[in-house]
Amino acid sequence: MALTTVVFDVNETLSDLTPLGKKFSDLGVPDWLGPYWFASTLREGIALAAGGELRTFSEIGTDTAARLLRRHGVRWADVRAGEVLDGFLELPVHPDVHDGVAALRAAGLRLVTLSNGAAAVAERLLGDHGLREQFDRVLSVEDAGIWKPAPAAYTYALRTCGIDASEAVMVAVHPWDLHGAARTGMATAWLNRTGEPWPGHLTPPTFTVRALPELAGRLA
Amino acid sequence: MALTTVVFDVNETLSDLTPLGKKFSDLGVPDWLGPYWFASTLREGIALAAGGELRTFSEIGTDTAARLLRRHGVRWADVRAGEVLDGFLELPVHPDVHDGVAALRAAGLRLVTLSNGAAAVAERLLGDHGLREQFDRVLSVEDAGIWKPAPAAYTYALRTCGIDASEAVMVAVHPWDLHGAARTGMATAWLNRTGEPWPGHLTPPTFTVRALPELAGRLA
Repeated sequence: MALTTVVFDVNETLSDLTPLGKKFSDLGVPDWLGPYWFASTLREGIALAAGGELRTFSEIGTDTAARLLRRHGVRWADVRAGEVLDGFLELPVHPDVHDGVAALRAAGLRLVTLSNGAAAVAERLLGDHGLREQFDRVLSVEDAGIWKPAPAAYTYALRTCGIDASEAVMVAVHPWDLHGAARTGMATAWLNRTGEPWPGHLTPPTFTVRALPELAGRLA
Repeated sequence: MALTTVVFDVNETLSDLTPLGKKFSDLGVPDWLGPYWFASTLREGIALAAGGELRTFSEIGTDTAARLLRRHGVRWADVRAGEVLDGFLELPVHPDVHDGVAALRAAGLRLVTLSNGAAAVAERLLGDHGLREQFDRVLSVEDAGIWKPAPAAYTYALRTCGIDASEAVMVAVHPWDLHGAARTGMATAWLNRTGEPWPGHLTPPTFTVRALPELAGRLA
């Protein structure tokens, strides 16, 4: 079956998380806690998925931020953790996103998102950057009942879109996300903006691009 | 049924990972890559567990270290990544471990380990610090076929030890590990050396201690 639908991951794939480092340094702790917090939040959420359970990204992310801030001596860490999560509502999109989305739409593809975060956060990101109308659906694993990369997260998106796995390509910067999608039978596109090698222990992506506009040509 | 067996996590619970930061700084990159690498390696391994798959800690950890080193400009990153993993073979144990292990043994309890890392690494850690003879078994999830916190990792350990979940207490510094053990029916003991609050979204531990020697008294 031909590809009809592009399923986008959101955090770090569409949005640029760099400003989260400043959120931490503004609170008087090292800015490297930005990427460390994101990796730790994913580890916690995916650990629950490994046991078949789900908590929201907001819940886990707030708790993880509060623990990191307290460990680094920030008083009122629970309150300040909220500031970190608020940072998720003000993120830029990567410079290649607008042109890439336009090219994929021009190629006649349907676009949807599937995030481990809340649908409302993705709605806000797309809305703030004038991209919302390009997307048919904005989906969250919160409605799937389990985080990516558990297989049920991807099959939830396919079912909601009314499509077979063979019609869909998952786009993400995170190899573990694409590996999970590949196991459900989806095609995968690795948005490898930094030129890193693919991790040898995971299923190689169907497509690899350095910037999103390249993808439309590859799918044509 | 009375508790007969104490199941220990290994990395960060028995061993002190602090020297890994120096492994990175010796390679000319920031020492915060130590904890970031460990969180990222766990995220990758647990992501595979969420899809029912397993790769070894060594394989994922080496790959993750190589990617981080390359991202920070280290040439020959694949070779240097091996140095980071070698660091796992030379770690100290936390100062409370010797007295804690002795107290638990004096209380008549059987001690085993269950690590997401290789059994050989745990054997080396225990052997180097004169602790090996205190432990009946040194188990790895590599033989379970799946990483913690997937339920099958804990039931593998219980089955191998020939005990019911109600006879065992899991000891770890990582809340996600204890949450997974609790779901199998094991008691749990949180070794909370830093005085952090328990994450609200996880099943509270049966016991919480600041140092391992306290645990024997709590289990008596």
